[in-house]
Amino acid sequence: MITNAVIIGAGNLATQLAIALKNKNISIKQVFSRNIDNAAELGKKVDSDYTNMLSEIISDADIYIIAVKDSAIQEVVLNLPLNNNQFIVHTAGSVNMSILDGFSSNYGVLYPFQTFSKSRNVDFSEIPICIETNHPANLMKLQGLASLLSNSVNQINSDERKTLHIAAVFANNFVNHLYTISSEILHNKNLSFELIKPLIAETAEKIKSMKPIEAQTGPAKRNDKTITENHLNELRTNPDIQKIYSFITDSIFRFHINKNS
Amino acid sequence: MITNAVIIGAGNLATQLAIALKNKNISIKQVFSRNIDNAAELGKKVDSDYTNMLSEIISDADIYIIAVKDSAIQEVVLNLPLNNNQFIVHTAGSVNMSILDGFSSNYGVLYPFQTFSKSRNVDFSEIPICIETNHPANLMKLQGLASLLSNSVNQINSDERKTLHIAAVFANNFVNHLYTISSEILHNKNLSFELIKPLIAETAEKIKSMKPIEAQTGPAKRNDKTITENHLNELRTNPDIQKIYSFITDSIFRFHINKNS
Repeated sequence: MITNAVIIGAGNLATQLAIALKNKNISIKQVFSRNIDNAAELGKKVDSDYTNMLSEIISDADIYIIAVKDSAIQEVVLNLPLNNNQFIVHTAGSVNMSILDGFSSNYGVLYPFQTFSKSRNVDFSEIPICIETNHPANLMKLQGLASLLSNSVNQINSDERKTLHIAAVFANNFVNHLYTISSEILHNKNLSFELIKPLIAETAEKIKSMKPIEAQTGPAKRNDKTITENHLNELRTNPDIQKIYSFITDSIFRFHINKNS
Repeated sequence: MITNAVIIGAGNLATQLAIALKNKNISIKQVFSRNIDNAAELGKKVDSDYTNMLSEIISDADIYIIAVKDSAIQEVVLNLPLNNNQFIVHTAGSVNMSILDGFSSNYGVLYPFQTFSKSRNVDFSEIPICIETNHPANLMKLQGLASLLSNSVNQINSDERKTLHIAAVFANNFVNHLYTISSEILHNKNLSFELIKPLIAETAEKIKSMKPIEAQTGPAKRNDKTITENHLNELRTNPDIQKIYSFITDSIFRFHINKNS
């Protein structure tokens, strides 16, 4: 059973994960970040030691959770001063579990499927946690740890996890960019972003009980050329936004034509 | 003061608006729809007479609310059997108030800035209602009616309303299409859409307290080519979705480069 952890990383996910584990009485023994201020800040939050030297990482923790950016994972595992037995997991959506192969006989992935900010504490209990390990015994251990945090623990392999991450890019990163664009459009005409917040909330709320394909409305779906061409004309001063309008409008139309034919 | 109304239309908005007004003790005297079954269905919901003949519309209501599709507004006003005094409003985001000019000396627009479904009752109190009239006295009357429904009543002219509608296409129609795409991506690999619902909810929740531009995360913003090219490769079997990925990724990158430079 896992009763303590070392957290490698001090970004958004590392911070929220460390706090959530600490709240479930998993002792955070040490926090690492390349940036000593960040390491200290998180160390303080979860009452743990901290370091900015990989060589100083302690060797007797139950689990090592690597929550650094994807491109830094390899370098971190290469330089962990551990023997071949410690349980190491990474937390990345798009990185295959096999990146940890050869560095330990016990490894896996713990991927909380959510977006995180340092400053915004989230309730982990509703966050799907996706786990994968190299061995059934490790799966039991990781399942035990993940179940402390969440009611939704899912065994998901590396291929499936990559698919989840792509879906998340659409539903989170791209959606947020559309929020940004709509904010810009309003701002350019001195209209408050507050006006559109209830619409954004309801758009997300709707798909809790309706399939998104059934929730689709608007001029693109109806192929209402009078409105879409009028809108495109209004957007002519911003070619980038205009192109996105045109492109997604076409995509909605094609998508719904195909589905109905 | 407005104490009763005729509702012209029986679609999503007409239905929700009629129900909301009825709940605030505005008597719905009559409902019109081209389709008699739809007229009857809404008539029953709000305890009102109904008709599918414009020529049968009564002439003594305090307000006539036209909630039909944009392209049908002109035909409806042309055929309303009214004299020149009745108070007529339409509810369309992208239609100028002037479409009502010449048909009555009292007219305006009542535009609830939200997405509606027939089957999903919404709480109007938090929905921004945008109003515009041809005359200050009508503004007072419409303000009075709108204030019964919502705590957010905003005087918005036709140009501003068009801008709101464009912003809504991005934040509602286009966002929902991205939900649809992410649902497809998951479905194609037999992964449940349930897994992504908490992420969608948090993405929308975040921008209640953060500016969307500050909430942006992900490989596109970081210009992480390893991930974005890997994702594009995964999406090669669906060129339409692949193009959207490529296009929005570029847009996010350009947008954040420009903002930071």
